[in-house]
Amino acid sequence: MYAEPIQRLIDELARLPGIGPKSAQRVAFHLLKLSEDDAGRLADAIVDVKARVRLCDVCFNVSDQELCEYCRDDRRDRTMICVVQEPPDIVALERTREYDGLYHVLQGHISPIEGIGPEDLRIAELLERLKAPPGSPEAIQEVIVATNPNIEGEATAMYLGRLIGPLGVKVTRLASGLPVGGDLEYADEVTLGRALSGRRRIQ
Amino acid sequence: MYAEPIQRLIDELARLPGIGPKSAQRVAFHLLKLSEDDAGRLADAIVDVKARVRLCDVCFNVSDQELCEYCRDDRRDRTMICVVQEPPDIVALERTREYDGLYHVLQGHISPIEGIGPEDLRIAELLERLKAPPGSPEAIQEVIVATNPNIEGEATAMYLGRLIGPLGVKVTRLASGLPVGGDLEYADEVTLGRALSGRRRIQ
Repeated sequence: MYAEPIQRLIDELARLPGIGPKSAQRVAFHLLKLSEDDAGRLADAIVDVKARVRLCDVCFNVSDQELCEYCRDDRRDRTMICVVQEPPDIVALERTREYDGLYHVLQGHISPIEGIGPEDLRIAELLERLKAPPGSPEAIQEVIVATNPNIEGEATAMYLGRLIGPLGVKVTRLASGLPVGGDLEYADEVTLGRALSGRRRIQ
Repeated sequence: MYAEPIQRLIDELARLPGIGPKSAQRVAFHLLKLSEDDAGRLADAIVDVKARVRLCDVCFNVSDQELCEYCRDDRRDRTMICVVQEPPDIVALERTREYDGLYHVLQGHISPIEGIGPEDLRIAELLERLKAPPGSPEAIQEVIVATNPNIEGEATAMYLGRLIGPLGVKVTRLASGLPVGGDLEYADEVTLGRALSGRRRIQ
């Protein structure tokens, strides 16, 4: 219907999450009206993000260096690890200004229905970080499980609780207060801050 | 908050129409998870659309050639021109299968509030296309004004009616039936088809 380069752009845009055919068309025509420089900046940013962004060697947050900004930062509390599903969850937690420990990004959640088991997540690497003997200065004293408050997130939290508890490390879960069925990434700061300060031990 | 390449991509995405900061973040992390090839295809499509797409020399529809597919097509009725605001409106009209004449894309609407006057649109070029003397084989017999059924679109239609009527060319407007205040681009085929067949002369 459209000239081939336009249709191809619309098709590529429509593959993005949350962008239907109508908004793909709207975005495509917006890009057509931009200057070549402005459109080029978006194309460059896409290529650049793929070329320069990698996962942190320690916590698997996204980073443009071997270690992410939180793992590099010596002022943070290195006795606590907050476990999240995805990198944007870290940004949400940082906005609360109630946590200054380390992070660990699982890169997903356990979901038998989707065929995602513990071995598909960064759980082995998390256990590796907990190996320092309790009492030693580099020992992790608490793991806060901040997975999403939905079925998969809860299941992942339970699994981690059962796995890590026996190692002598305190394992906690964000307090209820988060709306169930929601997405941690989109919680407001107050709710998320309250959930953080009221976190409870996994039995 | 994010590594610089990620933040830059989020910022560029958030400048697109209909994409807020949250969906920009979602799209950015989606792109991060794509293979380099898949992300590259989107970047290429953006660069390509800017490099290869131009406006048709005659009707100002988008095209990858000097003349768009409708201006090139000898089987279409060359005595009728349907005037639209934007290229996606042509696609909407084609979907009705009730029109097989030519098109003319104004590239906008008259809007004193936005400071857009007739001289900012492709109106002079439209008048040029109406210059063949009435009765000659290449004479345009009817101009259908298919601007959006909202205030600016109506004003543009009235302006064109007063301008073109005296040239001895019949000027019509899409029939009411289109929901007022809406956007032609998003009308369903049936409504738009009915509006097309019931078009009425501008007084």
